[in-house]
Amino acid sequence: MSNILVVGSLAYDTLTTPKGHVDRALGGSANYFSLAASLYSHVRVVGVVGEDYREEDFEMLRKRKVDLKGLQKKAGKTFHWTGQYKDDMSEAITLATDLNVFADFNPELPAEYKDSEYVFLANIDPILQLRVLEQISKPKLVGSDTMNFWISSKLPELKKVLAKVDVLLINEGEADGITKTGNAIAAAKTLVEMGPKAVVIKRGEYGFVLYTKEGYFILPAFPIDNVVDPTGAGDTFAGAFFGYLAKRDKGYDLHSLKQACIQGCLTASFTVEAFGVERLATLTWPEVEHRQAEYHNVTTL
Amino acid sequence: MSNILVVGSLAYDTLTTPKGHVDRALGGSANYFSLAASLYSHVRVVGVVGEDYREEDFEMLRKRKVDLKGLQKKAGKTFHWTGQYKDDMSEAITLATDLNVFADFNPELPAEYKDSEYVFLANIDPILQLRVLEQISKPKLVGSDTMNFWISSKLPELKKVLAKVDVLLINEGEADGITKTGNAIAAAKTLVEMGPKAVVIKRGEYGFVLYTKEGYFILPAFPIDNVVDPTGAGDTFAGAFFGYLAKRDKGYDLHSLKQACIQGCLTASFTVEAFGVERLATLTWPEVEHRQAEYHNVTTL
Repeated sequence: MSNILVVGSLAYDTLTTPKGHVDRALGGSANYFSLAASLYSHVRVVGVVGEDYREEDFEMLRKRKVDLKGLQKKAGKTFHWTGQYKDDMSEAITLATDLNVFADFNPELPAEYKDSEYVFLANIDPILQLRVLEQISKPKLVGSDTMNFWISSKLPELKKVLAKVDVLLINEGEADGITKTGNAIAAAKTLVEMGPKAVVIKRGEYGFVLYTKEGYFILPAFPIDNVVDPTGAGDTFAGAFFGYLAKRDKGYDLHSLKQACIQGCLTASFTVEAFGVERLATLTWPEVEHRQAEYHNVTTL
Repeated sequence: MSNILVVGSLAYDTLTTPKGHVDRALGGSANYFSLAASLYSHVRVVGVVGEDYREEDFEMLRKRKVDLKGLQKKAGKTFHWTGQYKDDMSEAITLATDLNVFADFNPELPAEYKDSEYVFLANIDPILQLRVLEQISKPKLVGSDTMNFWISSKLPELKKVLAKVDVLLINEGEADGITKTGNAIAAAKTLVEMGPKAVVIKRGEYGFVLYTKEGYFILPAFPIDNVVDPTGAGDTFAGAFFGYLAKRDKGYDLHSLKQACIQGCLTASFTVEAFGVERLATLTWPEVEHRQAEYHNVTTL
């Protein structure tokens, strides 16, 4: 079984959506990614938590056989995000960002992680993303994500990352932030010219655009009529996407990228059904597989 | 060949988009619908124009064998809309609405239109939509559209229309305006309970949701990386949707509704490539058919 390395945040999120409110729910890109990817393959996590990080939250990943040797526990508090979603929940409104121990995060890989095969650089400072890549000897596939904060503050460094990754997974608004195209297809074409062999533009309930020079693929999200909390859907997508490719471990031609996107959609559709990682933490592979038939049905003549 | 009746607006639109500006381009729901539907079947139009309506604009419909006996020419000016689209063109900003002769529009059907088989009530006052239905003896399929203005000002009348139509084609924002669900799938389910056997929620570049009690179908729009003007895409979708069902003329089970939606997407993808009806006016059936293969390719594993 191939291994996957994720470098990202572990956080507590205080969230308000039209469906309710939750205090300090487990969140962070690395948690969503790991829970999703570990349904498919072996996962290693690099990240940092504070002294307040709950033992049960480590345990949740251990149960999925996620390797936690790359987790640093530092004096201080865990990254805490306070956010809100209104109306159709298409936009996350940040009320407070307490970086805490995450502010000085410096990803140092344990020696035994240097042979990592599938590597996902979640949304962190592009300088740190580059530092992670320098520590890995010969990855089979490298993917990355980013966010508007880095696009506006560290675009040159971000472009260096794009030149080094195989797959970029990015939100539609962020793709537009880099390319200023006002169009997802045009944005994907522009981003592929910047380095990645494949670009996946994540569109929330509208699904994704997968673009490569060999062809492209566009589908809506798996339909959910009772979205409780959209947080983490994108990182869940990325986790299942990488999980699928690592489990298969036969490169990433267009057909396998298409399959990986479908796994991403299916898995993310569970995440949004509850607050935080609640639904994802108990998700089983047969449940994902069950939705595959329905997804095929609603998107095919 | 079955006949299709459309009742809607004929207008001149002054438009500004990130791709340019055009003065008094031919527009209006009935024009977009007729040009699209006439690629498939025989179309009759009921509407009103002013003395400034250009002879060449009648001629454009006559070339497609559209029956214009239901068009009224009144003293005064043609309906004129001035609008703008910014950035990703997802929102139409109205700068001016000069209803002109359209303000007193009262749809009176010529005697020979009373046997109309496929009837589309484009976005007009729901009271007028009901008045049209009273004049038709035994339609095979009735569809309607609406807009936020009627949702906020004439909801009881609109609900009477919904109780009488077979298919509702509506924008996502307007579906939410009626249902307050904040979710397209939930909105479609709610709308089907109000009368229509099928609901098509139009999502612009994100495609559509087709919902019936027998099943549903969701696909993105045909991808266009150089959208010039999104005006009329929804009415084009409706025209091709009705055109397909009328040409086939074998009812509207889920499979044929799915096919009709695909025809809607393909045809609308041409409309947005130029200002107004410019591209649609010269569109041929082989061009639509050509995109069908690519659409299938980019939405199928």
